[in-house]
Amino acid sequence: MHRPMIALVAALFTALPVAAEETPLPTVSHFMLENGLELVVIPDRRAPVVTHMVWYRTGAADDPAGQSGVAHFLEHLMFKGTAKYPAGTLESKVNELGGETNAFTNADVTVYFQTVPPDALAEMMDIEADRMRNLVLAPEVIDSERAVVLDERRQRVDSQPRTILSEAVNATLYQNHPYRIPVIGWEHEIETLSREDALAFYDRFYAPNNALVIVAGDVDAEAVKAMAETTYGKVERGPDLPPRHRPEEPAATTSRTVTLEDARVSLPNFARSWLVPSYRQAENGEAEALDVLSAILSDGPQSRLYQALVVKTGMAAQVGAAYGGSALDDGTFTLYGVPRPGNTLDDLEKAVATEVDELIANGISEAELERVKTRFIRSTIFAQDDQSAMAQTYGTWLTTERSVEDVALWPDRIRAVTPEQVKAVAVKYLRPAVAVTGYLLPPAAETKP
Amino acid sequence: MHRPMIALVAALFTALPVAAEETPLPTVSHFMLENGLELVVIPDRRAPVVTHMVWYRTGAADDPAGQSGVAHFLEHLMFKGTAKYPAGTLESKVNELGGETNAFTNADVTVYFQTVPPDALAEMMDIEADRMRNLVLAPEVIDSERAVVLDERRQRVDSQPRTILSEAVNATLYQNHPYRIPVIGWEHEIETLSREDALAFYDRFYAPNNALVIVAGDVDAEAVKAMAETTYGKVERGPDLPPRHRPEEPAATTSRTVTLEDARVSLPNFARSWLVPSYRQAENGEAEALDVLSAILSDGPQSRLYQALVVKTGMAAQVGAAYGGSALDDGTFTLYGVPRPGNTLDDLEKAVATEVDELIANGISEAELERVKTRFIRSTIFAQDDQSAMAQTYGTWLTTERSVEDVALWPDRIRAVTPEQVKAVAVKYLRPAVAVTGYLLPPAAETKP
Repeated sequence: MHRPMIALVAALFTALPVAAEETPLPTVSHFMLENGLELVVIPDRRAPVVTHMVWYRTGAADDPAGQSGVAHFLEHLMFKGTAKYPAGTLESKVNELGGETNAFTNADVTVYFQTVPPDALAEMMDIEADRMRNLVLAPEVIDSERAVVLDERRQRVDSQPRTILSEAVNATLYQNHPYRIPVIGWEHEIETLSREDALAFYDRFYAPNNALVIVAGDVDAEAVKAMAETTYGKVERGPDLPPRHRPEEPAATTSRTVTLEDARVSLPNFARSWLVPSYRQAENGEAEALDVLSAILSDGPQSRLYQALVVKTGMAAQVGAAYGGSALDDGTFTLYGVPRPGNTLDDLEKAVATEVDELIANGISEAELERVKTRFIRSTIFAQDDQSAMAQTYGTWLTTERSVEDVALWPDRIRAVTPEQVKAVAVKYLRPAVAVTGYLLPPAAETKP
Repeated sequence: MHRPMIALVAALFTALPVAAEETPLPTVSHFMLENGLELVVIPDRRAPVVTHMVWYRTGAADDPAGQSGVAHFLEHLMFKGTAKYPAGTLESKVNELGGETNAFTNADVTVYFQTVPPDALAEMMDIEADRMRNLVLAPEVIDSERAVVLDERRQRVDSQPRTILSEAVNATLYQNHPYRIPVIGWEHEIETLSREDALAFYDRFYAPNNALVIVAGDVDAEAVKAMAETTYGKVERGPDLPPRHRPEEPAATTSRTVTLEDARVSLPNFARSWLVPSYRQAENGEAEALDVLSAILSDGPQSRLYQALVVKTGMAAQVGAAYGGSALDDGTFTLYGVPRPGNTLDDLEKAVATEVDELIANGISEAELERVKTRFIRSTIFAQDDQSAMAQTYGTWLTTERSVEDVALWPDRIRAVTPEQVKAVAVKYLRPAVAVTGYLLPPAAETKP
């Protein structure tokens, strides 16, 4: 039942924040229990369904050195049951109710969630509160679950050239920060993970004062708070954790390439990335400007890269830009492309660079900026239609040192972005001299270099 | 007085081991004091001089995450004195005697040494034994010494394009192991190093049971042992340290490039590296075969790369190969070249690759192998002429889990290398699909890619 969805949060992020003007924001309630557990309740009364999520402020970037994958391994082991709720209880209860339960780990957080009818919420809270401290790990489950994770790695990474390349690009792009290490872990380190490693991680990070509970749905906030107090509220506070300061990146000094030739690749492609500030780190609206920059380059059929390289020259089968700004630490900005047969990867890469140069040389128009802002605001309205996505948005923002108010203010901050700011972040961050470019190639195809 | 010599050990290594047949090995004495301190005495009676070295089995690869540079910073601070021997005492004593004192840090070890007349040995031992546990760090020396280290970094790294590139290549070549982090530390982390960080490192790693003392010179082994017992022998044993297991590298899956364009570069050049086993890790004579491979490619005027690319085509101003096999963990094999003006970097790189392909396709001749072995054995004889280099060799081998006997057996192991072994390591390790190539270029010169 439980399929970890690594990096789901990052993928969902840009589409989700809610608009302040066009649709009134839901009145989000925000509580802190006495034991330090943070609780957010998002009303959503359209259907008798509730999303319940527990966010632990710990992820793969907190794996101890040499134990990569332990955060994710523990996520698997969290389904092995407690004395009160033996393994399988959660899944069968949720199944009976026609709901869903799942979990995911990314570099910054580990998250468990269920979507169930509102009258099952108290029980879900009791189950999650129970496994927050009372997990029972029989030694015999360790080897079998480790084998499951290793198999997951083989399926998701080793059999996917795209993912193999992506691991190597991350390990090149980040020279010092643990984001360079795969969330699922290096195979040789997963193989050594022990019960003691998992329990040490659990004991350090799984406690009410390191958790955020989000409930979205057809519920009353005060009633949810009361339920939380009789479940999570009974869990003893853990030791205070130090601030989440991971090793930081040095200033980049070189351009780098990472190339994988693989017989399973049919279409060559490239992705050129830079480290840029995340929303948490950014100052002076740079994160919003990077979001707008990526949209101007590639959001929708009117975007610059699409118009120039798919519509006009037709040299690209795919082309785009993406800002990943939802991480606790450094974010990324990426330009990517797949040439249409008959066009070389090198030519497409140069054409994409030319579009960026053009934007830097001549800036963007107010009309173009307005179009992009309208699309952003509209997407936030659509996003409110998806209850669990709403819950994800609040979870992501609140676990990266941003607030409920920041969610509400985001559309205004996008509205405030100026053409000068967009140009400025392009100049400042998209410097060829420090780019890291991944190339995925069929064997003996055009090679880089 | 004290100039840290980072990576000196690695550079000296290949030239130094001693031959078993041609010159009788010195009768090396090897003791273990009761507190766990290891002592090696190498007789060398040619001159009234003694080399005294203390090797701590800790280096930059043991820096805690986020505190890069602390091993090296502590090396600086070790000259700040003790209650018994205030700052400057060691330097002025050695100066009076006309000797030398210095220290260096590399990824695996931190080493302090003096060259003095034999009758000063006991005092040197007393000074080193004293600062092994009794270092006094006045808070006011921390800021000033940190500034010295930052200045050293600016001189050695930031003002040297070659070193800037080399840092980025290491951070790319090593994806998981701490060898990716510079020994001197990242600038932004050096800036944060505190007195507490340095003392925590000192308290953890500086103890007799984590130290090796090497004395080479005109001394009697039993007398040296007696001196060691009355100096080092009085230092209390520290807690047992766990085995030195650093995070290991995943299997490489991609080829990578790292490019620095810099106005200070006049001649473009490239260096293509692979991770290979070090002597400690290697099985089945692979380390010796890698040493022989590098010599066949580039040791002396008869070597393949020199003959083909300097003598015949004249396309290279410099070209070579190097095996770095003296590390505790992964070693490196590197091919490098500087084109002669009028030749492109790309052409030279391809020509070097062609020479490797040719070696792989057709192997090497017995005559070629004999020539290289003779050069190796001869170099070990010359190396015995240098007392401090001899001491360095034993120190390097004994701190990388090799023995005094291994030093003696090395020439025989080189003699045993077969043409098949040389070809086999070239095939196994010098794979273009996993190479990491650094390019140092003048601005707007031929760019890669």
